[in-house]
Amino acid sequence: MAQHDPWLLTPGPLTTSMTVKQAMLHDWGSRDAGFVAINTHMRKRLVDLIGGGKDFTTVPMQGSGTFAVEAMLGGFVGPKDKLLILINGAYGKRMAKICEYYKRATAVLEWPEDQPVDPAKVREALAADQAITHVAVVHCETTSGILNPIAEISKVVAEAGRKLLIDSMSAFGALPIDVNSVTFDAVAASSNKCIEGVPGLGFVLCRISALEKTKGNAMSLTLDLFEQWQNLEKTSQYRFTPPIHCIVAFDQALTEHEQEGGVAGRGGRYRNNHKILVDGMRALGFETLLPDRLQAPIIVTFHMPADPKFVFEQFYDGLKDRGFVIYPGKLTVADSFRIGCIGRIGETEMKAFLAAAKDVLNGLGVASGRPHNKAAE
Amino acid sequence: MAQHDPWLLTPGPLTTSMTVKQAMLHDWGSRDAGFVAINTHMRKRLVDLIGGGKDFTTVPMQGSGTFAVEAMLGGFVGPKDKLLILINGAYGKRMAKICEYYKRATAVLEWPEDQPVDPAKVREALAADQAITHVAVVHCETTSGILNPIAEISKVVAEAGRKLLIDSMSAFGALPIDVNSVTFDAVAASSNKCIEGVPGLGFVLCRISALEKTKGNAMSLTLDLFEQWQNLEKTSQYRFTPPIHCIVAFDQALTEHEQEGGVAGRGGRYRNNHKILVDGMRALGFETLLPDRLQAPIIVTFHMPADPKFVFEQFYDGLKDRGFVIYPGKLTVADSFRIGCIGRIGETEMKAFLAAAKDVLNGLGVASGRPHNKAAE
Ligand SMILES: Cc1ncc(COP(=O)(O)O)c(C=O)c1O
Ligand SMILES: Cc1ncc(COP(=O)(O)O)c(C=O)c1O
Repeated sequence: MAQHDPWLLTPGPLTTSMTVKQAMLHDWGSRDAGFVAINTHMRKRLVDLIGGGKDFTTVPMQGSGTFAVEAMLGGFVGPKDKLLILINGAYGKRMAKICEYYKRATAVLEWPEDQPVDPAKVREALAADQAITHVAVVHCETTSGILNPIAEISKVVAEAGRKLLIDSMSAFGALPIDVNSVTFDAVAASSNKCIEGVPGLGFVLCRISALEKTKGNAMSLTLDLFEQWQNLEKTSQYRFTPPIHCIVAFDQALTEHEQEGGVAGRGGRYRNNHKILVDGMRALGFETLLPDRLQAPIIVTFHMPADPKFVFEQFYDGLKDRGFVIYPGKLTVADSFRIGCIGRIGETEMKAFLAAAKDVLNGLGVASGRPHNKAAE
Repeated sequence: MAQHDPWLLTPGPLTTSMTVKQAMLHDWGSRDAGFVAINTHMRKRLVDLIGGGKDFTTVPMQGSGTFAVEAMLGGFVGPKDKLLILINGAYGKRMAKICEYYKRATAVLEWPEDQPVDPAKVREALAADQAITHVAVVHCETTSGILNPIAEISKVVAEAGRKLLIDSMSAFGALPIDVNSVTFDAVAASSNKCIEGVPGLGFVLCRISALEKTKGNAMSLTLDLFEQWQNLEKTSQYRFTPPIHCIVAFDQALTEHEQEGGVAGRGGRYRNNHKILVDGMRALGFETLLPDRLQAPIIVTFHMPADPKFVFEQFYDGLKDRGFVIYPGKLTVADSFRIGCIGRIGETEMKAFLAAAKDVLNGLGVASGRPHNKAAE
């Protein structure tokens, strides 16, 4: 059945396995022992993925990834704290927006969308402003697909005695983020990205000793991370109805993630998808926004071709007709579009996609995907 | 498959049809035209259910019912407003708690859990405090199962020139709440109660002329009802990833609701379930907390039996073994438990439940479900 759905080459929601979707063909009560066991298991497995041992806990949050990010910022950054937000894309900006709602003290360091966060500048900013207590950063900025140097940033932040909060939404489960190599108080992600579950649940992996100190910080009942955690610890149940089917599917997705070899296995498949995609698109004349060394194997931004016969909507629709969904650009720096490498897709689908792309280009009479700025050189 | 899952005689999540669950066996992109059409259709159908015409709009909210209630209160009650909260159970109290987080001005009128909200007292309170701009009430207080006289309350509120906000979570879709008989600015409900979808989505039906004035009120990015609405109107898309599978299942559930004859048909089945349940339980000696005239056909609270051989956990487990999940009590006034009449269940399941209850009582050696206070009379 799902085999006839289009392949989603997007930053998520993604193509999921049929077995993940089939896990939703049941009804559970939210206080049902069977469901409670699945949920508890799910929470533990996520801690295992970061090697969090007894120091970390998973606080799931109904909604989506942004709900988890908001709960993380609203919980960890208290009224007397100050947050330094590192921005090189839309998701960094979104964190700043959340803090505006909460009227929390913030400072911002910003880079162009095609440049990674620079740890040296973070060090300077922390040295210059002693009021800053926390730093927030996006792991893979899905806006461009750029990989921020999370380990180096965490080192700088830890050395300055500050706390790091990470939005790892589009990277979690495919790129390593281990407590032994990255020091952080919290990392937020969601069910429907690299773990390949369905959308409906965000979660925050929290350092327990830091989480314990966040009581009373939250400014929203539903997004109160501390209370959500306390209730789960005390009763194993949610304060408010959880997205049961999504959680059961997520647990199945975690099983399939494990069977694939965990973060290394999943990341390996995505890296292979990414290589096939980029090599193939370059052979068609397309150029990537980012040099390979800055690119995460999650989603790739391509420059819009210069050929006036290339109309993005027609390219998009032609691909859709052939069973592939790609993604519009979100950049402010350049006219672009994006293609994802994540979800339950592999070599076969990536190669079929390239054949489809070639076919659509031929149909449009586009000889090369070469972009304008380069063509003009 | 679902036929082997236990029947959920709870206030939700509920037993859903297999066709509702099977609607989730696909993958969609969140910007996919097919999904966008389903979502737009779903929003329109909910407005139709209240006869809202062009005056109302549906603002869906990721999360659960409480997320929608918080978004409703956070949106409609501005910093200069004052909210009168009518409380006769846990869900009324929860609204007061939300307002504590938001530090909004509130007043409270409270009744015992086994008594309905009294419109005369509401009239007095509104006359006495001109600062009150809005009133919030729960339609069916799921704590006890009591039906609040929503039409009468709305009349009093409208006559006093104030605005009504309703939590109709457990009643919506089964008990009528039509704009012609009830005057309100907003009503909140969710996907997984009487419409019989799966959990993951709340929604607020909003009077557009009132919603338009709420810009800037929200104190949370994700729960910003105004922005959620604006974005849906302008782009037909969500600001943050929606629970796609849950929404597609919800649309299927709305189709099945329509096929059953809408609110009248769905409510009719539930009233029949309710009658079979109450008659049968009374025949076993059990007594309901509420007199019939106060009882909504949604969930029924029964007094705990006096017989010391009746141990609730054993009753619960015995029923679970026989394929039925009931619900613990949530009352503060009396020791009790609850049994729901809602979800994809009918006469056959209600009668099978009664047979199972009788069987479990026999096994425990309990001769009658008669409660202590009554037995002592
Ligand atoms: C880095 C990052 N942060 C946050 C989000 C927001 O997640 P959601 O759409 O689930 O709210 C995304 C979604 O793509 C993301 O890539
Ligand atoms: C009247 C009422 N309000 C609010 C809620 C909360 O809904 P949720 O658990 O989906 O957050 C419920 C749930 O049973 C309810 O019955």
